[in-house]
Amino acid sequence: MDSAARLARQVAFILEVDKLKEIFRQTHNTQSRRTENDAEHSWHLCLCVLVLAEHANSPTLDVLRVLKMVILHDLVEIDAGDTFAYDTARMADQHEREARAADRIFGLLPADQAAEFRALWDEFEAKTTPEAKFAAAVDRFQPMLLNCHTEGTAWRRHGVTHDRVLARNAHVAEGCVPLWEYVVKMVQEAVNAGHLLPAKKP
Amino acid sequence: MDSAARLARQVAFILEVDKLKEIFRQTHNTQSRRTENDAEHSWHLCLCVLVLAEHANSPTLDVLRVLKMVILHDLVEIDAGDTFAYDTARMADQHEREARAADRIFGLLPADQAAEFRALWDEFEAKTTPEAKFAAAVDRFQPMLLNCHTEGTAWRRHGVTHDRVLARNAHVAEGCVPLWEYVVKMVQEAVNAGHLLPAKKP
Repeated sequence: MDSAARLARQVAFILEVDKLKEIFRQTHNTQSRRTENDAEHSWHLCLCVLVLAEHANSPTLDVLRVLKMVILHDLVEIDAGDTFAYDTARMADQHEREARAADRIFGLLPADQAAEFRALWDEFEAKTTPEAKFAAAVDRFQPMLLNCHTEGTAWRRHGVTHDRVLARNAHVAEGCVPLWEYVVKMVQEAVNAGHLLPAKKP
Repeated sequence: MDSAARLARQVAFILEVDKLKEIFRQTHNTQSRRTENDAEHSWHLCLCVLVLAEHANSPTLDVLRVLKMVILHDLVEIDAGDTFAYDTARMADQHEREARAADRIFGLLPADQAAEFRALWDEFEAKTTPEAKFAAAVDRFQPMLLNCHTEGTAWRRHGVTHDRVLARNAHVAEGCVPLWEYVVKMVQEAVNAGHLLPAKKP
């Protein structure tokens, strides 16, 4: 494939992923209070990575690779849709749906680039490297932050309780212990303010 | 400042920049055809950087620094608003308005990080390094791409002509010659399709 043909395929990919701006999440933005879309979310994660990387558990974090992961991590939702973090029913086949989407979407690129992007997405999904763990940490932190500053709207709408928030997001600590400590306090304040339901009594 | 105090300031910054999701541009997204906001635009530029960096004029491009610039480049618009690329009246005091915004917004961060982010924004604005030139190239390419795939809606609404598009965006070539060659053909096709007005006859 010559350089012009490569560029044409790459531009077709850039156009295709414009669709990410129409995939809406459960979380609300703090200003207009409309729901956030995946493109905005992905940018906000980039910013979290730049600002918070110094707190990562790994002292040798490869920030460029973390950024690549958060830029790409939700592209699969163009086909697979957004799966709410507390929707256990839809989470059952989530990875299978998203893997099919990855095949199609990354497959629009020249083969070498498709393989690179797919490897980054696989790394993000596997959450075993320090970079993937940190990317996953900010991917869980950012929606909790927005929830805490929009009176817990998404949590309350779905009846999510304090214990479920802590259980679902505990892996933040694997990427960034100080961020998890911050989250635990922040989420407790949301309970105190009546924005997050306390754990159900047994 | 101890680590917890740093983290608190950093989170306050991350919350503040959530406002970027409410700064709307003139360009329309290809799917819903609503106007694009700065957060979506910034993410789309990140993706352009990842996909197109191989075509940059500089063979030793520092991709991480380019990404940092495009992630941060529009934060000033939280205070200064979006200035349309063809609005010469508002462009007169644009840099002054944006520099004041940079002082306030980056100033929310711990001093070392504020200085780093300000230096990246200043570098982007000056457009003299290979990284800033490439960042500027994708920042001009992406809205043209969206315009060409939304029947030139933003151009037609403002009566922008073919010669103005070429003149305003010629610096794409300073960052990425192949991308500029692509743009020249793409924009000519928009003229042929009636989506962009030809140059006014003298």
